[in-house]
Amino acid sequence: MPRADGRLEFARAWAAGSAYYRRMGIAVQGLEEGQSRLRLLAEEHHLNSDGILHGGVLPALADAAMGTAARTVHGAAAQLLTSESNIRYLRPAAGGEILALGRVVKAGRTLIVTEAEMSDAEGALLAKAGATFVVRAVGDDA
Amino acid sequence: MPRADGRLEFARAWAAGSAYYRRMGIAVQGLEEGQSRLRLLAEEHHLNSDGILHGGVLPALADAAMGTAARTVHGAAAQLLTSESNIRYLRPAAGGEILALGRVVKAGRTLIVTEAEMSDAEGALLAKAGATFVVRAVGDDA
Amino acid sequence: MPRADGRLEFARAWAAGSAYYRRMGIAVQGLEEGQSRLRLLAEEHHLNSDGILHGGVLPALADAAMGTAARTVHGAAAQLLTSESNIRYLRPAAGGEILALGRVVKAGRTLIVTEAEMSDAEGALLAKAGATFVVRAVGDDA
Amino acid sequence: MPRADGRLEFARAWAAGSAYYRRMGIAVQGLEEGQSRLRLLAEEHHLNSDGILHGGVLPALADAAMGTAARTVHGAAAQLLTSESNIRYLRPAAGGEILALGRVVKAGRTLIVTEAEMSDAEGALLAKAGATFVVRAVGDDA
Repeated sequence: MPRADGRLEFARAWAAGSAYYRRMGIAVQGLEEGQSRLRLLAEEHHLNSDGILHGGVLPALADAAMGTAARTVHGAAAQLLTSESNIRYLRPAAGGEILALGRVVKAGRTLIVTEAEMSDAEGALLAKAGATFVVRAVGDDA
Repeated sequence: MPRADGRLEFARAWAAGSAYYRRMGIAVQGLEEGQSRLRLLAEEHHLNSDGILHGGVLPALADAAMGTAARTVHGAAAQLLTSESNIRYLRPAAGGEILALGRVVKAGRTLIVTEAEMSDAEGALLAKAGATFVVRAVGDDA
Repeated sequence: MPRADGRLEFARAWAAGSAYYRRMGIAVQGLEEGQSRLRLLAEEHHLNSDGILHGGVLPALADAAMGTAARTVHGAAAQLLTSESNIRYLRPAAGGEILALGRVVKAGRTLIVTEAEMSDAEGALLAKAGATFVVRAVGDDA
Repeated sequence: MPRADGRLEFARAWAAGSAYYRRMGIAVQGLEEGQSRLRLLAEEHHLNSDGILHGGVLPALADAAMGTAARTVHGAAAQLLTSESNIRYLRPAAGGEILALGRVVKAGRTLIVTEAEMSDAEGALLAKAGATFVVRAVGDDA
Protein backbone atom coordinates (compact mmCIF):
# COMPACT_ATOMS: atom_id res chain seq x y z
CA MET A 1 0.00 0.00 0.00
CA PRO A 2 1.36 3.47 -0.85
CA ARG A 3 2.10 6.13 1.76
CA ALA A 4 -0.83 8.34 2.68
CA ASP A 5 0.89 11.28 0.98
CA GLY A 6 1.00 9.43 -2.30
CA ARG A 7 -2.67 8.59 -2.05
CA LEU A 8 -3.73 12.13 -1.21
CA GLU A 9 -1.57 13.42 -4.03
CA PHE A 10 -3.22 10.97 -6.43
CA ALA A 11 -6.73 12.02 -5.34
CA ARG A 12 -5.78 15.69 -5.72
CA ALA A 13 -4.23 15.22 -9.16
CA TRP A 14 -7.16 13.11 -10.27
CA ALA A 15 -9.60 15.89 -9.36
CA ALA A 16 -7.41 18.62 -10.83
CA GLY A 17 -7.20 16.71 -14.11
CA SER A 18 -10.96 16.31 -14.43
CA ALA A 19 -12.52 18.24 -17.30
CA TYR A 20 -15.86 17.58 -15.67
CA TYR A 21 -14.92 19.28 -12.42
CA ARG A 22 -13.67 22.30 -14.35
CA ARG A 23 -16.83 22.44 -16.43
CA MET A 24 -18.97 22.21 -13.31
CA GLY A 25 -16.92 24.81 -11.45
CA ILE A 26 -15.84 22.31 -8.79
CA ALA A 27 -12.49 22.70 -7.01
CA VAL A 28 -10.84 20.68 -4.25
CA GLN A 29 -10.15 22.85 -1.21
CA GLY A 30 -8.85 20.27 1.22
CA LEU A 31 -8.01 16.59 1.49
CA GLU A 32 -7.21 14.26 4.36
CA GLU A 33 -7.20 10.51 4.52
CA GLY A 34 -10.83 9.50 4.02
CA GLN A 35 -12.06 13.08 3.79
CA SER A 36 -12.49 15.79 1.18
CA ARG A 37 -13.62 19.39 1.07
CA LEU A 38 -14.85 20.67 -2.29
CA ARG A 39 -16.24 24.00 -3.44
CA LEU A 40 -18.63 24.86 -6.25
CA LEU A 41 -19.41 28.42 -7.24
CA ALA A 42 -23.05 28.26 -8.35
CA GLU A 43 -23.47 30.53 -11.35
CA GLU A 44 -26.28 31.40 -13.74
CA HIS A 45 -25.89 28.13 -15.65
CA HIS A 46 -26.37 26.01 -12.51
CA LEU A 47 -29.84 27.45 -11.93
CA ASN A 48 -33.26 26.32 -13.03
CA SER A 49 -35.67 28.55 -14.93
CA ASP A 50 -37.09 29.57 -11.54
CA GLY A 51 -33.76 30.70 -10.08
CA ILE A 52 -33.29 27.68 -7.82
CA LEU A 53 -30.19 25.48 -8.06
CA HIS A 54 -30.96 22.69 -10.54
CA GLY A 55 -31.71 19.34 -8.88
CA GLY A 56 -28.76 17.79 -10.69
CA VAL A 57 -26.05 20.10 -9.36
CA LEU A 58 -25.81 18.87 -5.77
CA PRO A 59 -25.77 15.15 -6.74
CA ALA A 60 -22.86 15.93 -9.08
CA LEU A 61 -21.03 17.88 -6.39
CA ALA A 62 -21.77 15.15 -3.84
CA ASP A 63 -20.46 12.45 -6.15
CA ALA A 64 -17.29 14.48 -6.65
CA ALA A 65 -16.80 14.98 -2.90
CA MET A 66 -17.47 11.33 -2.06
CA GLY A 67 -15.38 10.02 -4.96
CA THR A 68 -12.47 12.26 -3.99
CA ALA A 69 -12.67 11.12 -0.36
CA ALA A 70 -12.84 7.49 -1.50
CA ARG A 71 -9.80 7.95 -3.76
CA THR A 72 -7.66 8.80 -0.73
CA VAL A 73 -8.14 5.19 0.45
CA HIS A 74 -6.42 3.28 -2.36
CA GLY A 75 -4.85 6.06 -4.39
CA ALA A 76 -3.69 4.96 -7.83
CA ALA A 77 -3.94 1.29 -6.82
CA ALA A 78 -7.66 1.08 -7.61
CA GLN A 79 -10.20 2.39 -10.06
CA LEU A 80 -13.43 3.45 -8.35
CA LEU A 81 -16.84 3.30 -9.98
CA THR A 82 -19.97 4.73 -8.37
CA SER A 83 -22.33 1.83 -7.72
CA GLU A 84 -25.25 3.77 -6.28
CA SER A 85 -25.97 7.05 -4.55
CA ASN A 86 -28.81 8.96 -2.97
CA ILE A 87 -29.40 12.50 -1.79
CA ARG A 88 -31.93 14.32 0.38
CA TYR A 89 -32.43 18.06 -0.08
CA LEU A 90 -32.96 20.04 3.10
CA ARG A 91 -33.43 23.58 1.78
CA PRO A 92 -33.35 25.19 -1.69
CA ALA A 93 -30.19 27.03 -2.75
CA ALA A 94 -30.05 29.97 -5.10
CA GLY A 95 -26.47 30.48 -6.18
CA GLY A 96 -23.21 31.55 -4.60
CA GLU A 97 -20.58 29.40 -2.97
CA ILE A 98 -21.45 25.83 -2.02
CA LEU A 99 -19.19 23.65 0.09
CA ALA A 100 -19.21 19.85 0.14
CA LEU A 101 -17.60 17.68 2.79
CA GLY A 102 -17.04 14.09 1.70
CA ARG A 103 -16.23 11.30 4.14
CA VAL A 104 -15.48 7.59 3.96
CA VAL A 105 -17.80 5.70 6.31
CA LYS A 106 -16.47 2.21 5.62
CA ALA A 107 -13.67 1.11 3.33
CA GLY A 108 -14.01 -2.55 2.43
CA ARG A 109 -12.05 -4.65 -0.01
CA THR A 110 -14.67 -4.47 -2.76
CA LEU A 111 -16.94 -1.61 -1.65
CA ILE A 112 -16.35 1.82 -0.15
CA VAL A 113 -19.31 3.52 1.54
CA THR A 114 -19.21 7.31 1.76
CA GLU A 115 -21.28 10.32 2.78
CA ALA A 116 -21.34 14.01 1.94
CA GLU A 117 -22.87 17.18 3.33
CA MET A 118 -23.43 20.24 1.20
CA SER A 119 -23.82 23.70 2.77
CA ASP A 120 -23.99 27.28 1.58
CA ALA A 121 -21.58 30.10 2.42
CA GLU A 122 -23.47 30.85 5.67
CA GLY A 123 -23.08 27.24 6.76
CA ALA A 124 -26.73 26.27 6.28
CA LEU A 125 -27.00 22.58 5.45
CA LEU A 126 -28.46 22.21 1.92
CA ALA A 127 -28.39 18.46 1.36
CA LYS A 128 -27.03 15.14 2.61
CA ALA A 129 -25.87 12.38 0.30
CA GLY A 130 -24.47 8.87 0.47
CA ALA A 131 -22.86 6.58 -2.08
CA THR A 132 -21.25 3.19 -2.56
CA PHE A 133 -18.18 2.84 -4.78
CA VAL A 134 -16.92 -0.41 -6.28
CA VAL A 135 -13.17 -0.96 -5.99
CA ARG A 136 -11.38 -2.39 -9.02
CA ALA A 137 -7.71 -3.20 -8.55
CA VAL A 138 -5.57 -1.74 -11.32
CA GLY A 139 -2.19 -3.10 -10.27
CA ASP A 140 0.26 -1.80 -7.72
CA ASP A 141 1.07 1.89 -7.91
CA ALA A 142 4.52 1.37 -6.42
CA MET B 1 -56.54 22.41 -14.19
CA PRO B 2 -55.03 23.43 -17.54
CA ARG B 3 -55.41 21.37 -20.71
CA ALA B 4 -52.76 18.72 -21.23
CA ASP B 5 -51.36 20.70 -24.14
CA GLY B 6 -50.78 23.70 -21.95
CA ARG B 7 -49.00 21.58 -19.38
CA LEU B 8 -46.79 19.84 -21.93
CA GLU B 9 -45.98 23.18 -23.50
CA PHE B 10 -45.04 24.56 -20.09
CA ALA B 11 -42.74 21.60 -19.36
CA ARG B 12 -41.14 21.96 -22.79
CA ALA B 13 -40.61 25.70 -22.47
CA TRP B 14 -39.29 25.27 -18.95
CA ALA B 15 -36.64 22.81 -20.15
CA ALA B 16 -35.79 24.88 -23.22
CA GLY B 17 -35.27 27.96 -21.05
CA SER B 18 -32.87 26.19 -18.69
CA ALA B 19 -29.29 27.44 -18.82
CA TYR B 20 -28.32 24.35 -16.87
CA TYR B 21 -29.70 21.97 -19.50
CA ARG B 22 -27.83 23.86 -22.22
CA ARG B 23 -24.61 23.81 -20.21
CA MET B 24 -24.97 20.08 -19.60
CA GLY B 25 -25.84 19.33 -23.21
CA ILE B 26 -29.32 18.07 -22.30
CA ALA B 27 -32.21 18.40 -24.78
CA VAL B 28 -35.84 17.29 -24.57
CA GLN B 29 -36.69 14.89 -27.40
CA GLY B 30 -40.23 13.95 -26.49
CA LEU B 31 -42.95 14.67 -23.94
CA GLU B 32 -46.24 13.05 -23.08
CA GLU B 33 -48.41 13.41 -20.02
CA GLY B 34 -46.35 11.94 -17.19
CA GLN B 35 -43.45 10.99 -19.46
CA SER B 36 -40.32 12.56 -20.89
CA ARG B 37 -37.53 11.55 -23.23
CA LEU B 38 -34.26 13.46 -22.90
CA ARG B 39 -30.93 13.21 -24.68
CA LEU B 40 -27.43 14.10 -23.53
CA LEU B 41 -24.44 14.00 -25.83
CA ALA B 42 -21.58 12.94 -23.54
CA GLU B 43 -18.48 14.88 -24.53
CA GLU B 44 -14.94 15.19 -23.24
CA HIS B 45 -16.00 17.41 -20.36
CA HIS B 46 -18.49 14.84 -19.03
CA LEU B 47 -15.74 12.27 -18.54
CA ASN B 48 -13.57 11.46 -15.57
CA SER B 49 -9.80 11.40 -15.72
CA ASP B 50 -10.06 7.69 -16.54
CA GLY B 51 -12.35 8.15 -19.55
CA ILE B 52 -15.52 6.94 -17.82
CA LEU B 53 -18.62 9.13 -17.59
CA HIS B 54 -18.37 11.11 -14.32
CA GLY B 55 -20.61 9.77 -11.55
CA GLY B 56 -22.43 13.09 -11.41
CA VAL B 57 -23.61 13.18 -15.03
CA LEU B 58 -26.30 10.53 -14.93
CA PRO B 59 -27.89 11.83 -11.67
CA ALA B 60 -28.13 15.26 -13.32
CA LEU B 61 -29.65 13.80 -16.48
CA ALA B 62 -32.00 11.64 -14.41
CA ASP B 63 -33.15 14.63 -12.36
CA ALA B 64 -33.82 16.52 -15.58
CA ALA B 65 -35.83 13.64 -17.07
CA MET B 66 -37.84 13.05 -13.89
CA GLY B 67 -38.41 16.77 -13.27
CA THR B 68 -39.58 17.28 -16.85
CA ALA B 69 -41.98 14.33 -16.61
CA ALA B 70 -43.27 15.65 -13.28
CA ARG B 71 -43.80 19.13 -14.73
CA THR B 72 -46.31 17.70 -17.21
CA VAL B 73 -48.61 16.93 -14.25
CA HIS B 74 -49.32 20.44 -12.95
CA GLY B 75 -47.76 22.62 -15.61
CA ALA B 76 -47.32 26.24 -14.56
CA ALA B 77 -49.69 25.76 -11.62
CA ALA B 78 -46.97 24.37 -9.35
CA GLN B 79 -43.32 24.82 -8.55
CA LEU B 80 -41.53 21.48 -8.13
CA LEU B 81 -38.54 20.96 -5.86
CA THR B 82 -36.56 17.73 -5.76
CA SER B 83 -36.96 16.26 -2.28
CA GLU B 84 -34.74 13.21 -2.67
CA SER B 85 -33.38 10.96 -5.36
CA ASN B 86 -31.30 7.85 -5.81
CA ILE B 87 -29.57 6.10 -8.68
CA ARG B 88 -28.06 2.66 -9.35
CA TYR B 89 -25.44 2.30 -12.06
CA LEU B 90 -25.66 -0.88 -14.11
CA ARG B 91 -22.71 -0.50 -16.47
CA PRO B 92 -20.06 2.18 -17.09
CA ALA B 93 -20.54 4.56 -20.02
CA ALA B 94 -17.77 6.20 -21.99
CA GLY B 95 -19.26 8.98 -24.05
CA GLY B 96 -21.61 9.33 -27.00
CA GLU B 97 -25.37 9.71 -26.95
CA ILE B 98 -27.27 8.93 -23.76
CA LEU B 99 -31.05 8.72 -23.61
CA ALA B 100 -33.17 9.17 -20.49
CA LEU B 101 -36.78 8.15 -20.12
CA GLY B 102 -38.57 9.84 -17.22
CA ARG B 103 -41.90 8.63 -15.89
CA VAL B 104 -44.35 9.69 -13.17
CA VAL B 105 -45.11 6.70 -10.93
CA LYS B 106 -47.55 8.46 -8.59
CA ALA B 107 -48.78 12.03 -8.64
CA GLY B 108 -50.10 13.07 -5.24
CA ARG B 109 -51.24 16.43 -4.00
CA THR B 110 -48.01 17.22 -2.18
CA LEU B 111 -45.55 14.67 -3.59
CA ILE B 112 -44.81 13.33 -7.07
CA VAL B 113 -42.84 10.08 -7.29
CA THR B 114 -40.92 9.46 -10.51
CA GLU B 115 -38.44 7.09 -12.14
CA ALA B 116 -35.92 7.27 -14.96
CA GLU B 117 -33.92 4.86 -17.08
CA MET B 118 -30.74 5.91 -18.85
CA SER B 119 -29.42 3.96 -21.82
CA ASP B 120 -26.70 4.36 -24.43
CA ALA B 121 -27.16 4.62 -28.20
CA GLU B 122 -27.21 0.82 -28.53
CA GLY B 123 -30.04 0.60 -26.00
CA ALA B 124 -27.95 -0.87 -23.19
CA LEU B 125 -29.36 0.15 -19.82
CA LEU B 126 -26.77 2.29 -18.00
CA ALA B 127 -28.59 3.29 -14.81
CA LYS B 128 -31.96 3.42 -13.06
CA ALA B 129 -33.04 6.33 -10.90
CA GLY B 130 -35.97 7.42 -8.76
CA ALA B 131 -36.96 10.71 -7.16
CA THR B 132 -39.61 12.43 -5.08
CA PHE B 133 -40.65 15.99 -5.92
CA VAL B 134 -42.47 18.36 -3.58
CA VAL B 135 -45.36 20.27 -5.14
CA ARG B 136 -45.74 23.93 -4.22
CA ALA B 137 -48.83 25.66 -5.59
CA VAL B 138 -48.00 28.96 -7.30
CA GLY B 139 -51.50 30.10 -8.19
CA ASP B 140 -53.80 28.97 -10.99
CA ASP B 141 -52.35 29.09 -14.48
CA ALA B 142 -55.80 29.51 -16.05
CA MET C 1 -22.92 -23.43 -12.87
CA PRO C 2 -25.87 -25.51 -11.67
CA ARG C 3 -28.98 -26.14 -13.76
CA ALA C 4 -31.74 -23.56 -13.37
CA ASP C 5 -33.86 -26.13 -11.56
CA GLY C 6 -31.20 -26.61 -8.92
CA ARG C 7 -30.93 -22.87 -8.39
CA LEU C 8 -34.68 -22.33 -8.14
CA GLU C 9 -34.91 -25.24 -5.75
CA PHE C 10 -32.15 -23.74 -3.61
CA ALA C 11 -33.87 -20.34 -3.50
CA ARG C 12 -37.16 -22.01 -2.59
CA ALA C 13 -35.64 -24.16 0.14
CA TRP C 14 -33.70 -21.20 1.48
CA ALA C 15 -36.90 -19.17 1.88
CA ALA C 16 -38.86 -22.10 3.29
CA GLY C 17 -36.16 -22.68 5.90
CA SER C 18 -36.17 -19.08 7.07
CA ALA C 19 -37.47 -18.56 10.61
CA TYR C 20 -37.64 -14.87 9.79
CA TYR C 21 -40.01 -15.38 6.87
CA ARG C 22 -42.26 -17.56 9.04
CA ARG C 23 -42.23 -14.99 11.84
CA MET C 24 -43.10 -12.22 9.41
CA GLY C 25 -45.83 -14.25 7.69
CA ILE C 26 -43.96 -14.25 4.36
CA ALA C 27 -44.39 -17.15 1.90
CA VAL C 28 -42.96 -17.73 -1.56
CA GLN C 29 -45.73 -18.13 -4.13
CA GLY C 30 -43.74 -18.37 -7.33
CA LEU C 31 -40.17 -18.44 -8.60
CA GLU C 32 -38.59 -18.15 -12.02
CA GLU C 33 -35.03 -17.43 -13.00
CA GLY C 34 -34.38 -13.86 -11.81
CA GLN C 35 -37.92 -13.40 -10.49
CA SER C 36 -39.88 -14.07 -7.33
CA ARG C 37 -43.45 -13.65 -6.15
CA LEU C 38 -43.95 -13.44 -2.37
CA ARG C 39 -47.02 -13.01 -0.22
CA LEU C 40 -47.42 -11.49 3.24
CA LEU C 41 -50.67 -11.61 5.15
CA ALA C 42 -50.68 -8.35 7.12
CA GLU C 43 -52.14 -9.01 10.56
CA GLU C 44 -52.68 -7.01 13.71
CA HIS C 45 -49.01 -7.20 14.69
CA HIS C 46 -47.84 -5.66 11.40
CA LEU C 47 -49.81 -2.49 12.07
CA ASN C 48 -48.85 0.75 13.75
CA SER C 49 -50.79 2.24 16.64
CA ASP C 50 -52.82 4.18 14.05
CA GLY C 51 -53.89 1.11 12.08
CA ILE C 52 -51.52 1.71 9.15
CA LEU C 53 -48.97 -0.93 8.08
CA HIS C 54 -45.75 -0.22 10.00
CA GLY C 55 -43.06 1.48 7.89
CA GLY C 56 -40.75 -1.46 8.48
CA VAL C 57 -42.98 -4.19 7.04
CA LEU C 58 -42.70 -3.40 3.35
CA PRO C 59 -38.89 -2.97 3.42
CA ALA C 60 -38.65 -6.41 5.03
CA LEU C 61 -40.99 -7.93 2.45
CA ALA C 62 -39.13 -6.14 -0.36
CA ASP C 63 -35.77 -7.43 0.89
CA ALA C 64 -37.20 -10.94 0.99
CA ALA C 65 -38.59 -10.68 -2.54
CA MET C 66 -35.40 -9.19 -3.96
CA GLY C 67 -33.12 -11.58 -2.07
CA THR C 68 -35.15 -14.57 -3.25
CA ALA C 69 -35.04 -13.37 -6.87
CA ALA C 70 -31.29 -12.80 -6.54
CA ARG C 71 -30.76 -16.28 -5.09
CA THR C 72 -32.09 -17.82 -8.31
CA VAL C 73 -28.99 -16.44 -10.09
CA HIS C 74 -26.22 -18.36 -8.32
CA GLY C 75 -28.17 -20.82 -6.18
CA ALA C 76 -26.09 -22.50 -3.50
CA ALA C 77 -22.86 -21.35 -5.19
CA ALA C 78 -22.92 -17.93 -3.53
CA GLN C 79 -23.84 -16.25 -0.27
CA LEU C 80 -25.71 -12.99 -0.83
CA LEU C 81 -25.57 -10.04 1.54
CA THR C 82 -27.74 -6.97 1.15
CA SER C 83 -25.43 -4.03 0.52
CA GLU C 84 -28.02 -1.27 0.34
CA SER C 85 -31.69 -0.80 -0.38
CA ASN C 86 -34.29 1.92 -0.71
CA ILE C 87 -38.06 2.10 -0.88
CA ARG C 88 -40.68 4.66 -1.88
CA TYR C 89 -44.21 4.34 -0.49
CA LEU C 90 -47.00 5.20 -2.92
CA ARG C 91 -50.10 4.71 -0.76
CA PRO C 92 -50.73 3.57 2.83
CA ALA C 93 -51.83 -0.03 3.43
CA ALA C 94 -54.00 -1.23 6.27
CA GLY C 95 -53.78 -5.00 6.47
CA GLY C 96 -54.81 -7.95 4.35
CA GLU C 97 -52.85 -9.72 1.66
CA ILE C 98 -49.78 -8.03 0.22
CA LEU C 99 -47.96 -9.32 -2.84
CA ALA C 100 -44.34 -8.60 -3.71
CA LEU C 101 -42.75 -9.15 -7.10
CA GLY C 102 -38.95 -9.27 -7.02
CA ARG C 103 -36.82 -8.99 -10.14
CA VAL C 104 -33.11 -9.07 -10.97
CA VAL C 105 -32.20 -5.99 -13.01
CA LYS C 106 -28.51 -6.77 -13.47
CA ALA C 107 -26.52 -9.76 -12.28
CA GLY C 108 -22.81 -8.95 -12.16
CA ARG C 109 -19.93 -10.98 -10.82
CA THR C 110 -19.72 -9.12 -7.52
CA LEU C 111 -23.02 -7.22 -7.35
CA ILE C 112 -26.64 -8.09 -8.15
CA VAL C 113 -29.06 -5.19 -8.61
CA THR C 114 -32.74 -5.93 -8.00
CA GLU C 115 -36.15 -4.28 -7.77
CA ALA C 116 -39.47 -5.09 -6.14
CA GLU C 117 -43.06 -3.89 -6.37
CA MET C 118 -45.53 -4.39 -3.54
CA SER C 119 -49.28 -4.31 -4.15
CA ASP C 120 -52.43 -5.06 -2.20
CA ALA C 121 -55.05 -7.71 -3.00
CA GLU C 122 -56.83 -5.32 -5.40
CA GLY C 123 -53.61 -4.81 -7.32
CA ALA C 124 -53.01 -1.23 -6.14
CA LEU C 125 -49.30 -0.46 -6.09
CA LEU C 126 -48.21 0.22 -2.48
CA ALA C 127 -44.46 0.72 -2.80
CA LYS C 128 -41.45 0.31 -5.06
CA ALA C 129 -38.06 -0.81 -3.79
CA GLY C 130 -34.56 -1.47 -5.08
CA ALA C 131 -31.49 -3.16 -3.63
CA THR C 132 -27.93 -4.17 -4.32
CA PHE C 133 -26.64 -7.53 -3.10
CA VAL C 134 -22.98 -8.48 -2.73
CA VAL C 135 -22.06 -11.91 -4.08
CA ARG C 136 -19.69 -14.02 -2.00
CA ALA C 137 -18.60 -17.29 -3.57
CA VAL C 138 -19.01 -20.24 -1.19
CA GLY C 139 -17.61 -23.00 -3.39
CA ASP C 140 -19.14 -24.84 -6.31
CA ASP C 141 -22.49 -26.51 -5.67
CA ALA C 142 -21.92 -29.10 -8.41
CA MET D 1 -47.89 23.36 19.87
CA PRO D 2 -47.78 21.02 22.89
CA ARG D 3 -45.04 21.15 25.51
CA ALA D 4 -41.98 19.04 24.75
CA ASP D 5 -42.92 16.71 27.59
CA GLY D 6 -46.27 16.04 26.02
CA ARG D 7 -44.68 15.30 22.70
CA LEU D 8 -42.06 12.95 24.15
CA GLU D 9 -44.75 11.23 26.14
CA PHE D 10 -46.84 10.80 23.01
CA ALA D 11 -43.91 9.32 21.08
CA ARG D 12 -43.14 6.96 23.98
CA ALA D 13 -46.75 5.82 24.35
CA TRP D 14 -47.08 5.43 20.61
CA ALA D 15 -44.09 3.08 20.51
CA ALA D 16 -45.16 1.21 23.63
CA GLY D 17 -48.60 0.62 22.14
CA SER D 18 -47.23 -0.82 18.92
CA ALA D 19 -47.95 -4.51 18.40
CA TYR D 20 -45.38 -4.43 15.63
CA TYR D 21 -42.58 -3.26 17.94
CA ARG D 22 -43.46 -6.01 20.40
CA ARG D 23 -43.53 -8.63 17.67
CA MET D 24 -40.16 -7.46 16.37
CA GLY D 25 -38.63 -7.27 19.84
CA ILE D 26 -38.08 -3.52 19.60
CA ALA D 27 -38.12 -1.36 22.76
CA VAL D 28 -37.56 2.37 23.26
CA GLN D 29 -34.63 3.00 25.61
CA GLY D 30 -34.42 6.77 25.45
CA LEU D 31 -36.10 9.80 23.92
CA GLU D 32 -35.18 13.44 23.61
CA GLU D 33 -36.58 16.12 21.37
CA GLY D 34 -35.65 15.04 17.84
CA GLN D 35 -33.79 11.93 19.01
CA SER D 36 -34.52 8.35 19.89
CA ARG D 37 -32.61 5.35 21.16
CA LEU D 38 -34.12 1.93 20.43
CA ARG D 39 -33.01 -1.59 21.19
CA LEU D 40 -33.72 -4.85 19.39
CA LEU D 41 -32.67 -8.22 20.76
CA ALA D 42 -31.91 -10.27 17.65
CA GLU D 43 -33.12 -13.80 18.22
CA GLU D 44 -33.30 -16.96 16.14
CA HIS D 45 -36.30 -15.72 14.19
CA HIS D 46 -34.50 -12.57 13.04
CA LEU D 47 -31.81 -14.62 11.29
CA ASN D 48 -31.53 -15.90 7.76
CA SER D 49 -30.97 -19.54 6.91
CA ASP D 50 -27.22 -18.78 6.95
CA GLY D 51 -27.20 -17.33 10.47
CA ILE D 52 -26.87 -13.70 9.38
CA LEU D 53 -29.42 -11.09 10.45
CA HIS D 54 -32.12 -10.98 7.75
CA GLY D 55 -31.83 -7.98 5.42
CA GLY D 56 -35.27 -6.82 6.50
CA VAL D 57 -34.58 -6.50 10.23
CA LEU D 58 -32.39 -3.40 10.25
CA PRO D 59 -34.67 -1.41 7.88
CA ALA D 60 -37.57 -2.17 10.23
CA LEU D 61 -35.54 -1.14 13.28
CA ALA D 62 -34.30 1.97 11.46
CA ASP D 63 -37.84 2.96 10.49
CA ALA D 64 -38.91 2.55 14.11
CA ALA D 65 -36.00 4.68 15.39
CA MET D 66 -36.52 7.40 12.80
CA GLY D 67 -40.30 7.41 13.17
CA THR D 68 -40.01 7.64 16.95
CA ALA D 69 -37.54 10.54 16.69
CA ALA D 70 -39.83 12.27 14.19
CA ARG D 71 -42.85 11.81 16.46
CA THR D 72 -41.17 13.93 19.13
CA VAL D 73 -41.50 16.93 16.77
CA HIS D 74 -45.29 17.24 16.50
CA GLY D 75 -46.49 14.74 19.07
CA ALA D 76 -50.16 13.88 18.78
CA ALA D 77 -50.76 16.90 16.52
CA ALA D 78 -49.69 15.06 13.37
CA GLN D 79 -49.85 11.64 11.78
CA LEU D 80 -46.54 10.65 10.20
CA LEU D 81 -46.27 8.39 7.17
CA THR D 82 -42.94 7.12 5.85
CA SER D 83 -42.49 8.54 2.36
CA GLU D 84 -39.18 6.89 1.48
CA SER D 85 -36.16 5.40 3.17
CA ASN D 86 -32.80 3.88 2.35
CA ILE D 87 -30.17 1.92 4.22
CA ARG D 88 -26.53 0.96 3.70
CA TYR D 89 -25.14 -2.08 5.50
CA LEU D 90 -21.59 -1.74 6.78
CA ARG D 91 -20.98 -5.15 8.33
CA PRO D 92 -23.06 -8.31 8.81
CA ALA D 93 -24.64 -8.95 12.23
CA ALA D 94 -25.36 -12.32 13.73
CA GLY D 95 -27.69 -11.86 16.67
CA GLY D 96 -27.56 -10.32 20.11
CA GLU D 97 -28.40 -6.78 21.12
CA ILE D 98 -28.70 -4.12 18.44
CA LEU D 99 -29.01 -0.43 19.21
CA ALA D 100 -30.50 2.18 16.93
CA LEU D 101 -30.08 5.93 17.29
CA GLY D 102 -32.66 7.96 15.39
CA ARG D 103 -32.26 11.68 14.73
CA VAL D 104 -34.28 14.41 13.06
CA VAL D 105 -32.10 16.19 10.48
CA LYS D 106 -34.69 18.71 9.30
CA ALA D 107 -38.25 19.23 10.47
CA GLY D 108 -40.29 21.07 7.83
CA ARG D 109 -43.97 21.81 7.70
CA THR D 110 -44.79 18.96 5.33
CA LEU D 111 -41.69 16.77 5.46
CA ILE D 112 -39.42 15.54 8.24
CA VAL D 113 -36.00 14.20 7.22
CA THR D 114 -34.33 11.77 9.62
CA GLU D 115 -31.33 9.48 9.97
CA ALA D 116 -30.47 6.41 12.03
CA GLU D 117 -27.36 4.47 12.96
CA MET D 118 -27.50 0.85 14.04
CA SER D 119 -24.70 -0.74 16.07
CA ASP D 120 -24.09 -3.98 17.90
CA ALA D 121 -23.43 -4.42 21.62
CA GLU D 122 -19.71 -3.74 21.12
CA GLY D 123 -20.50 -0.45 19.44
CA ALA D 124 -19.55 -1.56 15.92
CA LEU D 125 -21.57 0.34 13.33
CA LEU D 126 -23.77 -2.12 11.42
CA ALA D 127 -25.77 0.14 9.11
CA LYS D 128 -26.78 3.72 8.37
CA ALA D 129 -30.25 4.70 7.25
CA GLY D 130 -32.21 7.77 6.24
CA ALA D 131 -35.90 8.48 5.72
CA THR D 132 -38.41 11.15 4.84
CA PHE D 133 -41.74 11.31 6.68
CA VAL D 134 -44.84 13.14 5.46
CA VAL D 135 -46.64 15.21 8.10
CA ARG D 136 -50.43 15.07 8.15
CA ALA D 137 -52.14 17.39 10.60
CA VAL D 138 -54.75 15.58 12.72
CA GLY D 139 -56.08 18.48 14.74
CA ASP D 140 -54.69 20.08 17.88
CA ASP D 141 -53.73 17.71 20.69
CA ALA D 142 -54.51 20.29 23.39
